[in-house]
Amino acid sequence: MIIMPDKKTWPVSITPDNYPEFISTSSEHLTRKGSDLAGYFEEEPEPDTVIYEVFEAETVGHIKMAMTVLKPGKVGNEFHMTKGHFHEDDKAGEVYVCFKGQGMIVMQTKEGQTDELRLTPGALAYIPPGWAHRTINTGTEDFIMLATYPETAGHDYGPIQEKGFIKRVVEINGQVQVV
Amino acid sequence: MIIMPDKKTWPVSITPDNYPEFISTSSEHLTRKGSDLAGYFEEEPEPDTVIYEVFEAETVGHIKMAMTVLKPGKVGNEFHMTKGHFHEDDKAGEVYVCFKGQGMIVMQTKEGQTDELRLTPGALAYIPPGWAHRTINTGTEDFIMLATYPETAGHDYGPIQEKGFIKRVVEINGQVQVV
Repeated sequence: MIIMPDKKTWPVSITPDNYPEFISTSSEHLTRKGSDLAGYFEEEPEPDTVIYEVFEAETVGHIKMAMTVLKPGKVGNEFHMTKGHFHEDDKAGEVYVCFKGQGMIVMQTKEGQTDELRLTPGALAYIPPGWAHRTINTGTEDFIMLATYPETAGHDYGPIQEKGFIKRVVEINGQVQVV
Repeated sequence: MIIMPDKKTWPVSITPDNYPEFISTSSEHLTRKGSDLAGYFEEEPEPDTVIYEVFEAETVGHIKMAMTVLKPGKVGNEFHMTKGHFHEDDKAGEVYVCFKGQGMIVMQTKEGQTDELRLTPGALAYIPPGWAHRTINTGTEDFIMLATYPETAGHDYGPIQEKGFIKRVVEINGQVQVV
């Protein structure tokens, strides 16, 4: 089964069964290890541990797509998470679709509004423009999502790298808690 | 449970369970009856039969979202379907997520390339720029999808209204066939 005969211009479907093919045909692949996330968690992660991977499709047009595979695990009592970022283009929203696993998106605005959404397979999250977003794996298997975003979006990691998110997602007495 | 406290600027999740709330809070609602689809099917549909409904969210930023509820049924041996359209902006692709039911997307380019994808709950389809797209309910319950597309996309119904799609999706001997 070939899902991307021409990555740029041919229709494709991505399902909970065939998503590894999306990954295998992606044009950009980024791996974030503990060392890349120094300063993000309350405690410091093992430098060589792979926390997550991002696979970006080579698409044309105004929509881009990327799949994130967030590995299960914790750093201290804090669940594995992505760095999180604002968009450079503050008019660019984003849509996430969850394919596998259990997790959350934590979001906040520059004005300090904060919100979080739980995501399970088949669910979708809409992140409006102006909201920084970070995904968190609260389960015991890979948490896999596909993001769709405008080509203009860009990544602004600065504010989160500097100040972090207001909320953290941790395990307390075996329960997932947003604190 | 309120999923859209502020439709434009607050994060929302949409799941196979809560999608009716998306529908209830959408700002635009369009109903297509048989009479609106005169000339589209091989045979003529009953004028008063509701074939599908579209619910568009009031979003800000570069991404728009709309949910389509395509009713089960056939006109002759041809499954219920949407009109189908090109985008006015030929650089605008689209992403569909299926929430409920069984169906297909049939697509074609102005150069006569044609393709189709099956969609089941939790699956996603990427429609590249330049491909007209129509959804088809091949099942026995509502076929419900959420579409995400650039704000610039627009709808160009003309070429399909005039010439139709090259392929039709019909039932032959109890089987779904693309002919």
